[in-house]
Amino acid sequence: MVASPEDPGNFLSNLAPHPLDQLSTNEIDIARDVVLQARLPASVVFRNTALEEPTKKVLLPYLVAERNGKLNDATLRPPRLARVLYDIVTSDAAWEFCDSVVNVETSEEVFFEVVEHHYHAPLSGDEIRDFPEIVRKSTMFQEALIDLSLPDNVIVVIDPWMYGGCSSPGSEPRYMQGLVYTRDPATNDPDSNHYAFPLPIIPVVNMATREVVRVDKLCTGGVNDGFQTDTHPQNAIGHCESAEYIPELVSGGLRQDLKPLNVHQPEGASFHVTGNLVQWQKWRFRVGFNYREGATLHDILYEGRSIFYRISYSEMSVPYGDPRPPYHRKQAFDFGDGGAGRATNSLQLGCDCLGVIKYFDAVMSDGRGKGMVVQNVICMHEQDNGIGWKHSNYRTGRAVVTRNRLLIVQFVITLANYEYVFAYNFDQAGGLAIETRATGIVSTVPIDPGKTSLWGNVVHPGVLAQNHQHLFCVRIDPWIEGPQNTVLYEESHVLPWNEETNPHGNGYEVRQTVLKKSGWADAAPHHNRVFKIVNPNHLNPISGRPVGYKFALPATQLMLAHPESLMGKRAAYAMHHIWVTKYRDHEYWAAGRWTNQGNVERGGVRDMVDRGENTENEDIVLWHSFGLTHNPRVEDFPVMPVEIYTIQLKPADFFTRNPAIDVPSTKNVTSQYYEQVSGIVRANGHTKCNEQRSSGINGCCGVNNGV
Amino acid sequence: MVASPEDPGNFLSNLAPHPLDQLSTNEIDIARDVVLQARLPASVVFRNTALEEPTKKVLLPYLVAERNGKLNDATLRPPRLARVLYDIVTSDAAWEFCDSVVNVETSEEVFFEVVEHHYHAPLSGDEIRDFPEIVRKSTMFQEALIDLSLPDNVIVVIDPWMYGGCSSPGSEPRYMQGLVYTRDPATNDPDSNHYAFPLPIIPVVNMATREVVRVDKLCTGGVNDGFQTDTHPQNAIGHCESAEYIPELVSGGLRQDLKPLNVHQPEGASFHVTGNLVQWQKWRFRVGFNYREGATLHDILYEGRSIFYRISYSEMSVPYGDPRPPYHRKQAFDFGDGGAGRATNSLQLGCDCLGVIKYFDAVMSDGRGKGMVVQNVICMHEQDNGIGWKHSNYRTGRAVVTRNRLLIVQFVITLANYEYVFAYNFDQAGGLAIETRATGIVSTVPIDPGKTSLWGNVVHPGVLAQNHQHLFCVRIDPWIEGPQNTVLYEESHVLPWNEETNPHGNGYEVRQTVLKKSGWADAAPHHNRVFKIVNPNHLNPISGRPVGYKFALPATQLMLAHPESLMGKRAAYAMHHIWVTKYRDHEYWAAGRWTNQGNVERGGVRDMVDRGENTENEDIVLWHSFGLTHNPRVEDFPVMPVEIYTIQLKPADFFTRNPAIDVPSTKNVTSQYYEQVSGIVRANGHTKCNEQRSSGINGCCGVNNGV
Repeated sequence: MVASPEDPGNFLSNLAPHPLDQLSTNEIDIARDVVLQARLPASVVFRNTALEEPTKKVLLPYLVAERNGKLNDATLRPPRLARVLYDIVTSDAAWEFCDSVVNVETSEEVFFEVVEHHYHAPLSGDEIRDFPEIVRKSTMFQEALIDLSLPDNVIVVIDPWMYGGCSSPGSEPRYMQGLVYTRDPATNDPDSNHYAFPLPIIPVVNMATREVVRVDKLCTGGVNDGFQTDTHPQNAIGHCESAEYIPELVSGGLRQDLKPLNVHQPEGASFHVTGNLVQWQKWRFRVGFNYREGATLHDILYEGRSIFYRISYSEMSVPYGDPRPPYHRKQAFDFGDGGAGRATNSLQLGCDCLGVIKYFDAVMSDGRGKGMVVQNVICMHEQDNGIGWKHSNYRTGRAVVTRNRLLIVQFVITLANYEYVFAYNFDQAGGLAIETRATGIVSTVPIDPGKTSLWGNVVHPGVLAQNHQHLFCVRIDPWIEGPQNTVLYEESHVLPWNEETNPHGNGYEVRQTVLKKSGWADAAPHHNRVFKIVNPNHLNPISGRPVGYKFALPATQLMLAHPESLMGKRAAYAMHHIWVTKYRDHEYWAAGRWTNQGNVERGGVRDMVDRGENTENEDIVLWHSFGLTHNPRVEDFPVMPVEIYTIQLKPADFFTRNPAIDVPSTKNVTSQYYEQVSGIVRANGHTKCNEQRSSGINGCCGVNNGV
Repeated sequence: MVASPEDPGNFLSNLAPHPLDQLSTNEIDIARDVVLQARLPASVVFRNTALEEPTKKVLLPYLVAERNGKLNDATLRPPRLARVLYDIVTSDAAWEFCDSVVNVETSEEVFFEVVEHHYHAPLSGDEIRDFPEIVRKSTMFQEALIDLSLPDNVIVVIDPWMYGGCSSPGSEPRYMQGLVYTRDPATNDPDSNHYAFPLPIIPVVNMATREVVRVDKLCTGGVNDGFQTDTHPQNAIGHCESAEYIPELVSGGLRQDLKPLNVHQPEGASFHVTGNLVQWQKWRFRVGFNYREGATLHDILYEGRSIFYRISYSEMSVPYGDPRPPYHRKQAFDFGDGGAGRATNSLQLGCDCLGVIKYFDAVMSDGRGKGMVVQNVICMHEQDNGIGWKHSNYRTGRAVVTRNRLLIVQFVITLANYEYVFAYNFDQAGGLAIETRATGIVSTVPIDPGKTSLWGNVVHPGVLAQNHQHLFCVRIDPWIEGPQNTVLYEESHVLPWNEETNPHGNGYEVRQTVLKKSGWADAAPHHNRVFKIVNPNHLNPISGRPVGYKFALPATQLMLAHPESLMGKRAAYAMHHIWVTKYRDHEYWAAGRWTNQGNVERGGVRDMVDRGENTENEDIVLWHSFGLTHNPRVEDFPVMPVEIYTIQLKPADFFTRNPAIDVPSTKNVTSQYYEQVSGIVRANGHTKCNEQRSSGINGCCGVNNGV
């Protein structure tokens, strides 16, 4: 037995945690104490503490021994390390952002650095919590509000934001900015959708002095108003109207005719969980979680064969395309600037997931650096996704059909207005889909009554939803039957039409390009460009081709901002769809380690590939950047229906047949005819089956009307 | 009450069928009798009889009156017409392919033509059934088999195929070809997967004389064997091995650890069906079916507002990319050459669909032109598809989340080896997804032992799965609040970087292009090209933009064969992603009406757009062609896991808010914790909720860990 996130404080036995287990609250507290001691007499303000994952050199042999049942006392077990991010306050009240690694088994600090001064730390929970009050108390802000001639009883709501790009971050103070709204003055409900009442000001706070330094005025005009900031009506929200989403306030009431649809698993779920180890339908993997990436997957095997070492979302950035200042600073890096794990929802049974649900908790650090458990951050459950495979022999009428059962590992984050649902969906045919859903509330700014804008859409009276992009990057560290892998792509091209080799002009060939050096590549759907990660040292015994996984990525629009603009320079990762780098420990961050208030992507994928290392038959990492260019429609307000983007990783000559061919095709006997349930007599009765085959009465058969 | 497909022979009342109801068996029989009479003394061999849908001029006002409750005796009710396809055999045994329209209410033939001789009729059920026997009895074929030195007890299986492209179809006889295999000699099971035992011959039959005219020899060599046809081993299947998919024969047995997942709808389904009219979650539409297109959707409204007049799959073609003759003739047009409806599966409760299922039957004509019912060709049911929308107010912790409930309308076809699952998926936010899944068995040809090929993949010993494309076309006849619509596309482009208008280089604009004349356009994902169908006469009251639907299509590779090759010329529809034509009655066929054994696409979308008609603010039709370039992997054998392609049609400023904002967010109380089900004690208990809001104890709340 190993300790698990369900048992964060007390080990269930005397055995050590698994190297990939999250830190326990106890371990976090140890790290805290070590850092406090080490930094005396300076005082410490903690930001984030998380597991420092073991280096691959130490972890990989451990995992191999573990999966082969060969762990013993002599096995090199990686030490338990914690990475602690914090500020130190020196005696003269100067602040320095620091970074330590603590061995929580020996209570020793093994690494310490003061982070270079041109980097700003990510936002902390305390800063996010304190920001609105700092703004509210500011005289400068209060005067700005007076200018807006708001109704007397309005309650102002302030969404804290990172500042965005900064041309000289080393010489500028640590800033935050706020987007400002009011609740619906008619109700002032605490859950009123304040995004329907945007105010034309953005306060900027110096977070070192904790003072509002300026209040930017926003452009609220239309197509002919250029960059003017004084066009709004006297009562800045006089032309606004409520747009509520909480059920008791939805205008017109709720639908009454939706009947329940329940998922029952009378024999329980088909998965098994021990600590963070999951086993399901020949898959075996571990689930991690940290404050920055949210849920991570590790040591992913199918039928005992390794496929992926580690998969996670690495970064996301949401640049806005409105050229009117200060909107050029609307560009959050939600992983680097704050942390997706920090923003994660505690999920609710029967709401976020249906059926038999396994929840995983997170263990993170609080504002004082102490360990805390956040419950139910990941929900895991099975789901039916229609037909998995089917074939009917039209001669005999015998149909064999199986259902496509998925295992969903999902987490949801809230970033002020927006929500993102991230899911890793495993299927029985060796496939893994990485699915991203955007929902929540679009970011809104004011627009004058009767006007329209080139920079977004009017989604409600007085409300402009600005055009923007969601630019994600997923990090895939493959382990296709071993760490030595190659990334290549294949394209399908028509052959020249000639009498000798292609006499009828129908032939096409598949051309392969190997990515031999670290670099990038883009999607090319018109050539059916398919990326593959292969192990050139292991050939499929049937086809003779290297075993591998393929990766058909839908082509999406990437970063629109000029590459040399602040927006563009900060997100070089978003310039190309695929980046391939040579593996280095701790290189997790597509846009670099420190993104907040930066002016350029440092240490991100662009810098990684510039090392020009060999990536053929090497330990490599593949990064996939994709975008959703979002030019909002009225239907996206007040809360947008999910936009779904899916990456599919599928075996390509990894197996010797369809790995799901052995999925049983048992008929689900609880399904019912609509007429039976509705009490209608159905004139023609039920489908008659051909003579049953010897597979028994529960086999799926069907009459095929081929002729 | 109107007659329904569930009551095909007997009207439940004296009222006439709905104009969009399929023909009843009675009506088909009437059409048969009229044609027989009209063609005397010639005898008739029937092919297909189906509803001739009313012209839009007559139907549209009827539908409008119907939806407004204004149908009365004076309403112009379209006559019930049947389109009958058949051959006449004249006294001197010459055959002519003919086409009639019969008014089945008055028993009068209202149209008759002899189809031009350069067109071949689609394959009939009888031809498909008879073909293998014709081949088996042929001496030429038997001698060809002897040359293959097969084991004594083999049972040869012959898959009937259309002949493919023909350079002078008018002067060549009607042909069919056969792909030839054997059952597994070890078992000779009737459901043995014969595709694992391909033979290197293709017999060609003259279907007029019903004789094998030649037996083509196939190239079975590898990369260095060019077009040689004599390289196969003496026993042509000696190096082959079984690859079974029927459960009792799957090598290694079936998985034993998959537990049931049931969908229960204790209060029944949320949809209502009367005849072919479906109502669900503000959607209202009619379901049709015919022998060629399979399931069709008509008169699609949401909250009483019209969106689509008619949607269907129009054509699909599967060209093979192997240049070695005669593989250039592997190109089926499964709708035009035979009919998707003809190939449709009768679906089985609990196998093809889960939950409370409504089945629709088809009424088609048999080989003698008489009406017959084919049961359960369409299954319709609800499905949960995860989170629909969610927002959490991080300040209060209150989360509101709704489930994304879909209504699936699905049919499945079997085309000898391949299966396709077609589904129309409605969602509660006004969206309609058109989803295509390819499964079944890849087409296989022999390959010599130990060799590999440029033209496909060895997926099993001796089995080459050739590279090919699946090229589909969906026909969308919009009715966005009226018949006068426009198709346009929008792209997002970066603005020039300059001090006056874009000082920080982040701005981007949306550029619109209207398709004013009939023509084509392609996907351009790097520009985020989004197609929209709008009604320029109706503006959204919130945004001021024309109401519309958008259509983000994943870019796919289109036809690879040379445009001037036989393969390319026959499928001009597959050269571009989007075609916009001016509506004309009965223009349903993207590749033209008669595709079988053709040499060029006639009367398809290319010819339609060449009319150069005005398409701005007109009654238009949008055709979407998409492809799956399929270069098989070993995992695609013996039956391939579904490949899924989805087109999303979503409202774009059609509504004044998220149309699903009023979906209730009731917690599903039947979901369970994994630990409870598994008998594990969970250390930290359940999630605690913030104080419940007044929405009641079943509201979905959640603790948000925003900070």
